[in-house]
Amino acid sequence: MTRTARAYTNIALIKYWGKKNKQLKLPYTNSLSLTLDRFYTDTTATIINEDHDVVYLNEQLLNDSQNKRILNYLDTVRKFYSFKDHFQINSINHVPTSAGFASSASGFAALAAAINETKQLNLTRRELSILARNGSGSASRSIYGGFVEWEAGTDNESSFAVPIDEHPEIDLSLLSVVINKSTKKISSTTGMENSVKSSPFYSNWVTLVASEIEEIKQAIAQKDVQKIGEISEHNAMSMHALTLSADPSFTYFEPETIQIIQLIKEMRQKGILAYATIDAGPNVKIICTKESLPKVQTCIKQQLSNVTTVVANIGSGIQYI
Amino acid sequence: MTRTARAYTNIALIKYWGKKNKQLKLPYTNSLSLTLDRFYTDTTATIINEDHDVVYLNEQLLNDSQNKRILNYLDTVRKFYSFKDHFQINSINHVPTSAGFASSASGFAALAAAINETKQLNLTRRELSILARNGSGSASRSIYGGFVEWEAGTDNESSFAVPIDEHPEIDLSLLSVVINKSTKKISSTTGMENSVKSSPFYSNWVTLVASEIEEIKQAIAQKDVQKIGEISEHNAMSMHALTLSADPSFTYFEPETIQIIQLIKEMRQKGILAYATIDAGPNVKIICTKESLPKVQTCIKQQLSNVTTVVANIGSGIQYI
Repeated sequence: MTRTARAYTNIALIKYWGKKNKQLKLPYTNSLSLTLDRFYTDTTATIINEDHDVVYLNEQLLNDSQNKRILNYLDTVRKFYSFKDHFQINSINHVPTSAGFASSASGFAALAAAINETKQLNLTRRELSILARNGSGSASRSIYGGFVEWEAGTDNESSFAVPIDEHPEIDLSLLSVVINKSTKKISSTTGMENSVKSSPFYSNWVTLVASEIEEIKQAIAQKDVQKIGEISEHNAMSMHALTLSADPSFTYFEPETIQIIQLIKEMRQKGILAYATIDAGPNVKIICTKESLPKVQTCIKQQLSNVTTVVANIGSGIQYI
Repeated sequence: MTRTARAYTNIALIKYWGKKNKQLKLPYTNSLSLTLDRFYTDTTATIINEDHDVVYLNEQLLNDSQNKRILNYLDTVRKFYSFKDHFQINSINHVPTSAGFASSASGFAALAAAINETKQLNLTRRELSILARNGSGSASRSIYGGFVEWEAGTDNESSFAVPIDEHPEIDLSLLSVVINKSTKKISSTTGMENSVKSSPFYSNWVTLVASEIEEIKQAIAQKDVQKIGEISEHNAMSMHALTLSADPSFTYFEPETIQIIQLIKEMRQKGILAYATIDAGPNVKIICTKESLPKVQTCIKQQLSNVTTVVANIGSGIQYI
């Protein structure tokens, strides 16, 4: 048996920042994302007659240490669904690191879906979301297209994503501005842990997310891109305020991050629709409309020489190919 | 009658960020500062036989609009102490804006002290601190030298600074790194107001300050510069987290601010004692020891071409000259 699944990456507009259960990847709060059309992972799972799994990423055979997270995940899947088969996994990542998006969301969503098909587990999308979450929290959201909410839940069975609007007719584009720098990065897992443990503001963050999730869902229903932008920007900056107020303080911002934030403010003052969202890294993703996108892109290119920009639109959920 | 008073500026290690009474400048929290030796204001007050006040700042006659804050303040002082005299005020500011320190702290402390002497009000230092606070909140702390705590209080009479250690024997120097940029600044008054009004984290800030004040007082008693630095840096970054999480989000950071924060971390990794504190602006003040100061200064100068550095040490309280 061999099957291939495709999953797209997603960008959180209301951020996932903090696990209350590390093992199960249960978050402290709900989060809300937009699935993107450009960046995806194609993963093929084949049942093999071996006592171990074999994993190829971008046609490269991974050794066990590179591979630990995926091997552990496959063990978890076997345990969940009580089977013993091992797999050959061939995963092709179309989420270039140079585009500034995380590949773990699309990666684990595609892997969960490929195994579901290969093993004919006949999982519902909800069950698939739970399975993907066990690989990477944000992967739970990449099961669906469009706007997606991940409900925090309280245990393995109640923590899954639900679609808010899978095919929204809304004039929203995303410009990813990638700062070409190789600085030592704090992983999002470590960053979350430090924030939960030591930011004096974390309890207020949990309350904030609950209200911003409700607000942004209303804005999505009203197709109000400006409002979506405002809420997303505030939520992202508040997440970064958690890193700044962690003890010891840290930040994902680079000098160019501040420059781009300043440029976005200046553009808004000129009436150009542009709002920032920033994940656990220095790159800035800018929420635009069709009208504002070329203006934003031109302005960024003029003011910053050492950045790459990539445009993404709204993408769809899991596909079998 | 004519008298001259000198007051030094101060740097808050535990920040004053938010007024619960704008008129009386009553803060939400206590704050704790270090008075500095280099930057001061000399103010002479002379009783004049006129029905209005005349104010010279750095030998320039101010017109009424430049002068509104000082004229209002003199009205407040007359009302407090029930007299009718008007003054000629000559104020010389030795707090160069290029050194990145606010002059309102030393300015209003010197003005309150000069009037106290000229009018022979015989105020205690506590009363003087209250009077200075009515001009500018942070001026309440510049009455004393060394480490000073401003007790928030609940009304005009209970909100004043107290000395923690006026002449501490501690190996602590401050390097002010001034970013030579003229960007549109958000005043600290506006910044505070926006943070109080719209940051979801403000209530946690109030709790944080209460505990950090106690911690830093212990570190001061133990002359533990590293601990003082750690607490100060965390408090400053948490204050800036309030601006980032305000709605709309804003920041006082410039790209160079991030660069300096990164450099300070790198220096610490090399064992050099250096901690950042940042007020409502892009400049960074670095807490050092005698040993680390020249290393920090060299590193900053090598890495950033367009900055000015100024060294300050621990200063004393109000003087009459």
